[in-house]
Amino acid sequence: MKELKGACIFGQSGGPTSVINASAYGVIDTALKNPNITRVLGAEHGIKGVLNDRLFDMSQEDADELRLLKYTPSSALGSCRYKIADPDVDDTDYKRILEIFKKYDVRYFFYNGGNDSMDTCNKISKYMQKVGYECRVMGVPKTIDNDLFGTDHCPGFGSAAKYIATSCMEVYQDAHVYDTSVICIVEIMGRHAGWLAGAAALATAYGAGPDLVYLPETDFDMDQFLADVERIYREKGSCMVAVSEGIHYADGAFVSEAKTSATDGFGHAQLGGLASTLAEVVKAKTGAKVRGIELSLLQRCAAHLASETDIEESFMSGKMAVENAVIGITDKMVGFERDEEDGKYVCRTKLFDLSDVANTEKKVPREWINEAGNGVEQAFIDYVLPLIQGETDLPKEDGLPRFAKLKKVLVK
Amino acid sequence: MKELKGACIFGQSGGPTSVINASAYGVIDTALKNPNITRVLGAEHGIKGVLNDRLFDMSQEDADELRLLKYTPSSALGSCRYKIADPDVDDTDYKRILEIFKKYDVRYFFYNGGNDSMDTCNKISKYMQKVGYECRVMGVPKTIDNDLFGTDHCPGFGSAAKYIATSCMEVYQDAHVYDTSVICIVEIMGRHAGWLAGAAALATAYGAGPDLVYLPETDFDMDQFLADVERIYREKGSCMVAVSEGIHYADGAFVSEAKTSATDGFGHAQLGGLASTLAEVVKAKTGAKVRGIELSLLQRCAAHLASETDIEESFMSGKMAVENAVIGITDKMVGFERDEEDGKYVCRTKLFDLSDVANTEKKVPREWINEAGNGVEQAFIDYVLPLIQGETDLPKEDGLPRFAKLKKVLVK
Repeated sequence: MKELKGACIFGQSGGPTSVINASAYGVIDTALKNPNITRVLGAEHGIKGVLNDRLFDMSQEDADELRLLKYTPSSALGSCRYKIADPDVDDTDYKRILEIFKKYDVRYFFYNGGNDSMDTCNKISKYMQKVGYECRVMGVPKTIDNDLFGTDHCPGFGSAAKYIATSCMEVYQDAHVYDTSVICIVEIMGRHAGWLAGAAALATAYGAGPDLVYLPETDFDMDQFLADVERIYREKGSCMVAVSEGIHYADGAFVSEAKTSATDGFGHAQLGGLASTLAEVVKAKTGAKVRGIELSLLQRCAAHLASETDIEESFMSGKMAVENAVIGITDKMVGFERDEEDGKYVCRTKLFDLSDVANTEKKVPREWINEAGNGVEQAFIDYVLPLIQGETDLPKEDGLPRFAKLKKVLVK
Repeated sequence: MKELKGACIFGQSGGPTSVINASAYGVIDTALKNPNITRVLGAEHGIKGVLNDRLFDMSQEDADELRLLKYTPSSALGSCRYKIADPDVDDTDYKRILEIFKKYDVRYFFYNGGNDSMDTCNKISKYMQKVGYECRVMGVPKTIDNDLFGTDHCPGFGSAAKYIATSCMEVYQDAHVYDTSVICIVEIMGRHAGWLAGAAALATAYGAGPDLVYLPETDFDMDQFLADVERIYREKGSCMVAVSEGIHYADGAFVSEAKTSATDGFGHAQLGGLASTLAEVVKAKTGAKVRGIELSLLQRCAAHLASETDIEESFMSGKMAVENAVIGITDKMVGFERDEEDGKYVCRTKLFDLSDVANTEKKVPREWINEAGNGVEQAFIDYVLPLIQGETDLPKEDGLPRFAKLKKVLVK
């Protein structure tokens, strides 16, 4: 191990989650305590904060407020969706990042995000290697979509899955109170991977969830969908459906963007998204009362229902990023590997090459989805269930969440 | 007190809440233990279960499952939206109800619901008096809308308010992560009264909530709304808005039903409801990224976030209905009266005449809404805050809610 002293920068990027700040706390708390890390800087709005020299001095924060990050949803330092250029085409940003790194003697860079963020992290890592600037670069994963390559699962997914499954169980109760039937269509995030929509099936496994679940891993067939819904509706007098926002026809066109061809009269602009579009089509077909529910932002920020397992693992991924970097590791993302001890789920961190992780999406295996493409198999349930275990210790103030309030003092 | 022995029927009606079953448990548990109540019958789908002679024998239920009713959302016995006739015009239903009451020697009738249900309860009470059939009739209130006359507040409201305020706080965090701004419009239930939409302002009072709140108690002006949103958006770089589904123009037309006249191009059918319609209009006006979020059914069934205060008060209203009936009270609804002890909120039950309660709506006082009609005053916050206190003890199974599973054994 070669000792390396210097400042670190931590940044967050991409869509936030309920627990991304638990990872932030893992990085910041561990870094603040490490003697080799001389200064802990938080980038405002991810890499943009580096480019704009907007860096917060994390040592100025109150320790109690930092601790609350574990329970505070969304990116506390601010996020961005900035796509960094290919350095061979345009190295302007990289030169600027190097300038800032030199200015603050930054020798550690921790970047917290999903696929695109790992790509940014990877490019910066490779650039620093190329120009010979010694800096250890580590990715800290984050995405409710659970689609990062290599790692068994992603921080943020378990909490979103718990929210989705719980909400589906509650909506199921609500949608079954009248003797006049209701068809209920729940729209869930996940543009390319169906991990989140599949999590709705946990509710079904526990007796109160969707009858049909559609993931983007299979092609969507509107006629088959309508036939499935109508059959269940006629049999049971009700039907609950979970759909991924990313469901698409065989030609690749998103159902949410295509004009629905199943019936006339639905070719107008779709203000309300997929759930309400499908609700209209189903209503026309069945004559039933149909309700479309979009879980929207709620599913990725519902910290009050975060999974304790997810919170602790998110914290651990941040902590291990720092601990590995100070002993000499660089150019890696801290992911997870699943194991069993005495028949119980155990999660260990594992390092993955940033080059492998960057921009590769992990989808739900086809064999975990049923043959008809309208539900998931037990293997999927078994995979997700350990990730939603345990309840959050989110402190409350007057019955409402008490989230972290950071001072965000800019470094001079 | 005149002793009266006989069976009781309990029924639930109208839209469900997170805690309506806590009231059910209050009635059922208390009735099962009372020696004067010879049999406890649960009506399937409210008054329809009486008319159809579909009654469950509640003594057949497992005590542990009954106890779980306290934490189980939605109407466990099933609900209905059956509007009973004026008995002077058509007494068919009443004759049938009397027949069923006689068949099972029903001397106690407890009905759990909102305005319409109290009307049903009142009509049945008056009919039984008129025909001289001795039966004690008590209303048990329930409505997230909080619009029942007389009572300080309604069971169900506190939990919905807690869910709305918490969700707004979380969405606020999420909507403020990017340096590119977002305008967020949250649609909240409440067709005629703005209690629920106003509850969103609790989030604001705790530092992370909507900048603007619109209740149906004031007239909505689209131009003023757009000017307000744009002003805040230009000042802060973001804007969060909470709107009641019942907001309406000065002529009484619901905004959700009217074609929006503010701009061209929004005259098409509104698939997605009010939030997405307003989002489109605001987007056209400001050019900002705008997101419409409808809290939909989630706000009335989110038992995982129920208020402990609400759960206990709901239970108490059911329990007191039985205890009052057995000592001779009839023709009343069990409501609440607010008091203070040592500066702390205390809630006591109070009886209201069913005739007064039936079909009278209680709205938010105009002086609790700010003059501009786009926010609430501190008096509103002070009113709601005690009602959301405390967390639910909802038992979990494998990280998911464990709701009551009733056997629902029909009486012979």
